[in-house]
Amino acid sequence: MSKKKLQIVKIGGNVINNERALNSFLKDFAVLEDPKILVHGGGKRASEISSAMGLVPQMINGRRVTDTTTVEVVTMVYAGLLNKNIIAQLQKFNCNALGLSGADANCILAHKRIVKDIDYGFAGDVDAINTEFINVLLQNNLTPVFCAITHDKNGQLLNTNADTIVSEVAIGMSGLYHTELNFVFELRGVLKSIDDKNSVITHINSEKYEDLVSTGIISDGMLPKLHNCFNALHKGVAKVKIGNASMIDKANKLYTTISLK
Amino acid sequence: MSKKKLQIVKIGGNVINNERALNSFLKDFAVLEDPKILVHGGGKRASEISSAMGLVPQMINGRRVTDTTTVEVVTMVYAGLLNKNIIAQLQKFNCNALGLSGADANCILAHKRIVKDIDYGFAGDVDAINTEFINVLLQNNLTPVFCAITHDKNGQLLNTNADTIVSEVAIGMSGLYHTELNFVFELRGVLKSIDDKNSVITHINSEKYEDLVSTGIISDGMLPKLHNCFNALHKGVAKVKIGNASMIDKANKLYTTISLK
Repeated sequence: MSKKKLQIVKIGGNVINNERALNSFLKDFAVLEDPKILVHGGGKRASEISSAMGLVPQMINGRRVTDTTTVEVVTMVYAGLLNKNIIAQLQKFNCNALGLSGADANCILAHKRIVKDIDYGFAGDVDAINTEFINVLLQNNLTPVFCAITHDKNGQLLNTNADTIVSEVAIGMSGLYHTELNFVFELRGVLKSIDDKNSVITHINSEKYEDLVSTGIISDGMLPKLHNCFNALHKGVAKVKIGNASMIDKANKLYTTISLK
Repeated sequence: MSKKKLQIVKIGGNVINNERALNSFLKDFAVLEDPKILVHGGGKRASEISSAMGLVPQMINGRRVTDTTTVEVVTMVYAGLLNKNIIAQLQKFNCNALGLSGADANCILAHKRIVKDIDYGFAGDVDAINTEFINVLLQNNLTPVFCAITHDKNGQLLNTNADTIVSEVAIGMSGLYHTELNFVFELRGVLKSIDDKNSVITHINSEKYEDLVSTGIISDGMLPKLHNCFNALHKGVAKVKIGNASMIDKANKLYTTISLK
């Protein structure tokens, strides 16, 4: 019997920071056929709340350094404010959503990142996904919505990269479902030229990926993102797409599809 | 076939505000036999975070007035900070807990309190409990942990009294389970004399309740609490207990039991 299709979507901070864009995305997401999973980031809002509390966010190489106070703030903002508002909106759009951190039902087990050169504090690297429980939710027609918080099963919550979480969840679920992973962000896809917002490369396979890297067309922030995509594909995810929020709307066909072949 | 026993416990702000008391309670709660449900308040921490953000909590008759900013803060603190820390601790103690607001899986549907004399803002009065989904969790050996946030199915999160939430959840679940409702707070139970911490009235039934009210032994804050208890008993809850956190430990037998007869 062929596996049932599962759509997993990750929305980045730029969608979350714009209330109108978020609402429009959630409306499109809500009508996607089940089963589906949403993963969200939300860095900017955490920085705003931190500032309001008089705290100064510390960043190294674009990653937040998570001290004791920071892990409290990101837990509040990601698992509380953002996650529950997303859930309330999805419920309004008749999508039976359920918000989760990695601690809930032990969904995402992680460990505090080992200190090499830089101590990122309470940053988590993912060890295991509770696919069995996630599947119970899907089978009950629920839509899990993950924020980027995990735990170490020893009482510590950990701040974790949302791209990593979505990839690991997709890899885990691909044993049970024909899994499609969708990265929704501010651009329309992987661009040939960063100056031309419409120069979307519509299809990238392993071979083309090597070309694009060697010719320097893929660089900077896109490198780890695409590395993540190919990692997911190598570990069983059926298809990966990168595009902006309107990609979820079936009418929009301009985005980047990534596959092994 | 007789119904399976379900224990529902509500912990108040005074247990949550004390890290040591909370940890000790969670350790006892974790070893309670399944199935079980936890509901928590947490008003003081929300006030602290509000203050840190330069906001002034507004209270009328001991109830928080929930304006737009306040509903954001309580959502952050209750559903994020407190709920996820409780979940992480319970996971540490090998209790497979799952944190929920009323919006998650549409667990607790409410409406914004109708304005009579006082406008409490985004305060929610409970309409319905999704007992079917809560039962799915219990049957999968999960322990639901509710914070005091509900939603109106129209995108609005609502601040809701935790005593009300726990009573409504208990009433709802009593159709499926032999449900015991436990209120854990700072005292050892309902006291004969407020000056004597050990003057616990060990059993109150409907008849005795009327006596205690008419003689003034039960007054003030205890009145709505006991009203809640008898309401729950009249609507199907099998037994109600009131006591301090150590009540959960089987060795402690000093607390107040409330029943109809």
